[in-house]
Amino acid sequence: MRLAVYSRFLEHLQQQAVTTISSGAIAEGAGVSSAQVRKDLAYFGEFGTRGVGYNVEELCGHIRRILGLNQNWPTVLVGAGKLGSALALYEGFHNRGFHIVGIFDVDPDAAGNRFGSIKVLPMEHLERVIRRENVQIGIITVPAAAAQGVGELLAASGVKSILNFSSFVLNLPADIIVRHVDFSLNMEVLTFSLTYGKTKI
Amino acid sequence: MRLAVYSRFLEHLQQQAVTTISSGAIAEGAGVSSAQVRKDLAYFGEFGTRGVGYNVEELCGHIRRILGLNQNWPTVLVGAGKLGSALALYEGFHNRGFHIVGIFDVDPDAAGNRFGSIKVLPMEHLERVIRRENVQIGIITVPAAAAQGVGELLAASGVKSILNFSSFVLNLPADIIVRHVDFSLNMEVLTFSLTYGKTKI
Repeated sequence: MRLAVYSRFLEHLQQQAVTTISSGAIAEGAGVSSAQVRKDLAYFGEFGTRGVGYNVEELCGHIRRILGLNQNWPTVLVGAGKLGSALALYEGFHNRGFHIVGIFDVDPDAAGNRFGSIKVLPMEHLERVIRRENVQIGIITVPAAAAQGVGELLAASGVKSILNFSSFVLNLPADIIVRHVDFSLNMEVLTFSLTYGKTKI
Repeated sequence: MRLAVYSRFLEHLQQQAVTTISSGAIAEGAGVSSAQVRKDLAYFGEFGTRGVGYNVEELCGHIRRILGLNQNWPTVLVGAGKLGSALALYEGFHNRGFHIVGIFDVDPDAAGNRFGSIKVLPMEHLERVIRRENVQIGIITVPAAAAQGVGELLAASGVKSILNFSSFVLNLPADIIVRHVDFSLNMEVLTFSLTYGKTKI
């Protein structure tokens, strides 16, 4: 998680034509301690020059490789409702190597719709597309009541990791990597900060 | 952030009728150390009984109060596109006290649409609604190019905290609390885990 935050911060610096940065400045930008930054980066090898800092472009490229962003990641999306269609068209995915190769929905009315260049397919085609395109990532944007079934189907079809936007907490085999995006959790961080100030808890 | 995660985990336990829990088990569920859990909870006063653990219902209620979830939080949403409409209808907001009292869009075609019971209004009404309803939270779901302008307008109209779904990193006065929801950042955590296993970095 922290590496992805460092990466985003370094990209931002690149846009502003900043060329070198200290671990302290990365720490401040990412909201962690500078000891943590040095420890995280050291974990992957030698970076930076003592007293000079890190070369932004070099470090950014290295972290992107570590995060696997120099690869293509074919992805399927299940649930072609409003959130699903918003994500299917989300420009931030494509330019980071995430390619949605299939959108699926149980609703026969949704099947046949197009989001950008991708047609919504019925669920019967899910496993075939996953196997054919060697898909390792699935995105779930179905209602809570349907999420567990979809998660199990994705896992059984060969998907290794899931980004879950439903409010249901998935219960899947331990080798499946699940990340839960909970919008209201983000709101709670705001209300906490509104009440207590910017304390980090 | 961690308190919101504890809260979600404790709600999950309540659904499963679990009545007491140790700090170690909370730590495991939330993915942090048990020393961290004890430290976080101690910060807000005395909880738990040594050797017995925490009463789930009591602790959950207390954390919800700390997070301000026992209050109503009138909220405005700017950007009535696909993501905006998905969020406007997101059930997880309403049952945690987040009430969207206005949806706004620059597009005159969008204005007049209804999402659930709420009508999309033109931007000219934004400040009036914020002042009238004493809105402290704004949600931004406009394209990146429009985000900074909307953020400034929200801040100038009296909003104290912003949940930013655009890919643009907002530059606002230091007293405005901003939280950036970056979907591709979540995807990067998946690809990192696919490459390196579940290491927490």
